[in-house]
Amino acid sequence: MEVGIDSFAAAFTKDSRAVSPSDRLNDLLDEIVYADKVGLDLFGVGEHHRAEFLDSAPTVILGAAAARTSRIRLSSAVTVLSAADPVRVFEDFATLDLISRGRAALVAGRGSFVDAFPLYGLKLEDYSALFAEKLELLLRIRDNEHVKWSGKFRPALTGQGVYPRPVQNPLPIWVGVGGTPESFLRAGKLGLPLAVAIIGGETADFKPLIDLYYKAGKLAGHPPERLKVGLHSLGYIAPTTDEAADDYFPGYQTAFAEVGKERGWLPPTREDFDAQRGPEGALIIGDPDEVVEKIIRHSKAIGGISRITFQMNAASLPHSKLIRAIDLLGKKVSPALREQLVNNDEGPS
Amino acid sequence: MEVGIDSFAAAFTKDSRAVSPSDRLNDLLDEIVYADKVGLDLFGVGEHHRAEFLDSAPTVILGAAAARTSRIRLSSAVTVLSAADPVRVFEDFATLDLISRGRAALVAGRGSFVDAFPLYGLKLEDYSALFAEKLELLLRIRDNEHVKWSGKFRPALTGQGVYPRPVQNPLPIWVGVGGTPESFLRAGKLGLPLAVAIIGGETADFKPLIDLYYKAGKLAGHPPERLKVGLHSLGYIAPTTDEAADDYFPGYQTAFAEVGKERGWLPPTREDFDAQRGPEGALIIGDPDEVVEKIIRHSKAIGGISRITFQMNAASLPHSKLIRAIDLLGKKVSPALREQLVNNDEGPS
Repeated sequence: MEVGIDSFAAAFTKDSRAVSPSDRLNDLLDEIVYADKVGLDLFGVGEHHRAEFLDSAPTVILGAAAARTSRIRLSSAVTVLSAADPVRVFEDFATLDLISRGRAALVAGRGSFVDAFPLYGLKLEDYSALFAEKLELLLRIRDNEHVKWSGKFRPALTGQGVYPRPVQNPLPIWVGVGGTPESFLRAGKLGLPLAVAIIGGETADFKPLIDLYYKAGKLAGHPPERLKVGLHSLGYIAPTTDEAADDYFPGYQTAFAEVGKERGWLPPTREDFDAQRGPEGALIIGDPDEVVEKIIRHSKAIGGISRITFQMNAASLPHSKLIRAIDLLGKKVSPALREQLVNNDEGPS
Repeated sequence: MEVGIDSFAAAFTKDSRAVSPSDRLNDLLDEIVYADKVGLDLFGVGEHHRAEFLDSAPTVILGAAAARTSRIRLSSAVTVLSAADPVRVFEDFATLDLISRGRAALVAGRGSFVDAFPLYGLKLEDYSALFAEKLELLLRIRDNEHVKWSGKFRPALTGQGVYPRPVQNPLPIWVGVGGTPESFLRAGKLGLPLAVAIIGGETADFKPLIDLYYKAGKLAGHPPERLKVGLHSLGYIAPTTDEAADDYFPGYQTAFAEVGKERGWLPPTREDFDAQRGPEGALIIGDPDEVVEKIIRHSKAIGGISRITFQMNAASLPHSKLIRAIDLLGKKVSPALREQLVNNDEGPS
C-alpha cells in the first residue's frame, strides 16, 4: 500500500496569519521535501481558485517540488478538469513528468468548490457533461501523440500533436470522486484507478459505491490490476492520540464552520468530531498505532485499498506540526503498514 | 544594464540527439542554476507547441528553476498570450512569483511559430485582435484583484477575484516584439517595457521602430522611467571569436534551413553568417571583449537599452558549451559592461 499526503496551499493558518503567501508556499515545498526524505510514496497538491488558497496553479508548485525531490510521486489532488483545457493539462503534467523523471500523476476531478466555473465562463448545469468530455479528451491525448477529436466544450483537434510527451507511458491518471455513483461508474468503465475522498461519515458506507466501480470495470473488460482504489482521508498524526485530537479539532471546527456557511452545514461540535474519530468514522486521527489499525480496518471495510493519502490541512495546523506528522507517517506508519500487510496479506491483489 | 539568457527547451541538439527529453530539461535547469550562480540578472524560457520543443509549459519549468535558484529573475520569453487565457497566465506567474519570492516576469508576445493557433482552435485572422484583447485583460487582472471585463475571445468576468496575488505589485510584464510597427506603438501606448527580438539584419535598422515606441509612450503620458527597451539577440560567447563562430555556425545553418522550409527562406551561407557577425550585424557572437563592444555599439545605435538577453539555442549547442558561455557571460561580459557603462555613462537614463 502506498502512503502519502494530499495538501492544499491555504493562504492562512489559524495560528499564523502573519505568515506571508511566499513563506506559506515555501513551507509547503519544505513539507514535500520532507515527505520525500522520510520515504513517503506520494504528495498531492490541490487546486482552488479563491482568496483563501494559493494553489490555483498546482503544476507550477509541483514543478518546484520536482526540482527538490528525487523519489516521491508528485500528483494533483485534484485537477479541476471540468474547468481546464485538457491540452494544457497534458502539457503541464507531461512537463512535470520530464522534470521529475517519471514521477508525475494526475487526479482528475470536478472539484469540491465551484469557483472555477464563473471564473472560466462555464455553466454549472454543464458540471457533469464538461467533466465527461474533458476526461475523454485527456485520455485520448495521453494515448495518442496526434489527436482527431471534436466535442461540445472545446475547439476540435484535427490531428495536431500535443507535446512534450511524458516519460511514463501511460501517464498515471486517477479519477477523484466524492459520493456520486455516476463518478464511480465512469471510472470503472474507463478502467482508471479511483481516488475516493471520504471526509466524513463512516468509511464502510462507501463499500457499495466501490463495488459498483469494480463491477463496471469488469463489465467493460478491464483487467483486475487496472482497477484499484486509493483512499483520500482527513487525517493527522501526533505522538499520542489525545494530542492529535486536541491539535486537530479547533482548526477543523473553524474550517467546517466556514465552508458550512456556503453549504448549509452546522459547525461540528467536539462530540461530532470525537464520533468521527471512532473505529468506523472517517477521520484518521491518532497516534501511529491507532492510525495503522484504522487504515487496515478501513481497507478491509471497502474491499482493499492500494493507497492512502492524508489530507491534514483542514485543521490549519502550523508548519512545525505538519512536519512532525509527516515524520511519524514516514517513519512509523508507513513501515508498520507494510509489515502488517505482508504478514496478514491484507493488501489488494 | 541587465544581462541574461533567453532559452528554448529544444527536444534535440545537433550533436546529441541521444539525450533524453528528461535529461534535456534537467540540463536546461542546470543552465539556469549556473546562470544564477555566476550572477546573471535574468533567465527566460520560451514557449512552443510542436514536436521539436519541450517547452509548452514554461511556468512549470520556471517553477522548478525557482526552487533551485535564489537571485536570478525568471521570465517567459515569450508567453504566447494570444493563445492563452490571461486568467490562467496570471495564476501561473503569480504562483511563480510567490515561490521565487518576487523574481517572476512575463514577456507577452504573439509567438513566432503559429502552432498554438490550430491547437487551441484559434483563427490566424484574429492574430492581432487576440493579442490586443488578452494583453488588456492581463493588465486588468494585474492591476485589480477583482475584475469586471468583457471581450470577444473569452467569457466575461463579473467581479471574480484572481488568485494568488503575486509578491511584486505590479508583476513585471514586458511586451515581446519582432518587426511590426503596431506592436511597438501598442507597447508605448500601454507604457510597458519593450523586449525587441532581433534575429537578423542590422540592429540599427530598429531605431525608427524604437523611436515610435518612445513617442507613443510619451504621447500617452507615461513617465520616461516606465519606457525601457530590452534587446533579445541571437548570440554566443567562447574564449576566442573564431571558436565562437565555428561552434555556432553549423547548428545555426541547420536551424534556419529547417525554419526556412516553412517560411520560404534560403538556408544561410557562411558568408551571410559572417556578415551578420560584423560590427553592425544582429548576431552577437564572439569572445567576451568583442561581445561587450558590440552590445555597447548596439545600445547606442538604438537609443540605449536596459537589458540584453542572449538566445543561444538557435545553434543547438551541447550543454557543456552553453555552460561555458554562461560562465563567460556572468564572469567577463556582465562585469565589463557594468564598468564601461559607469565610466562612459552609456546607459539609458
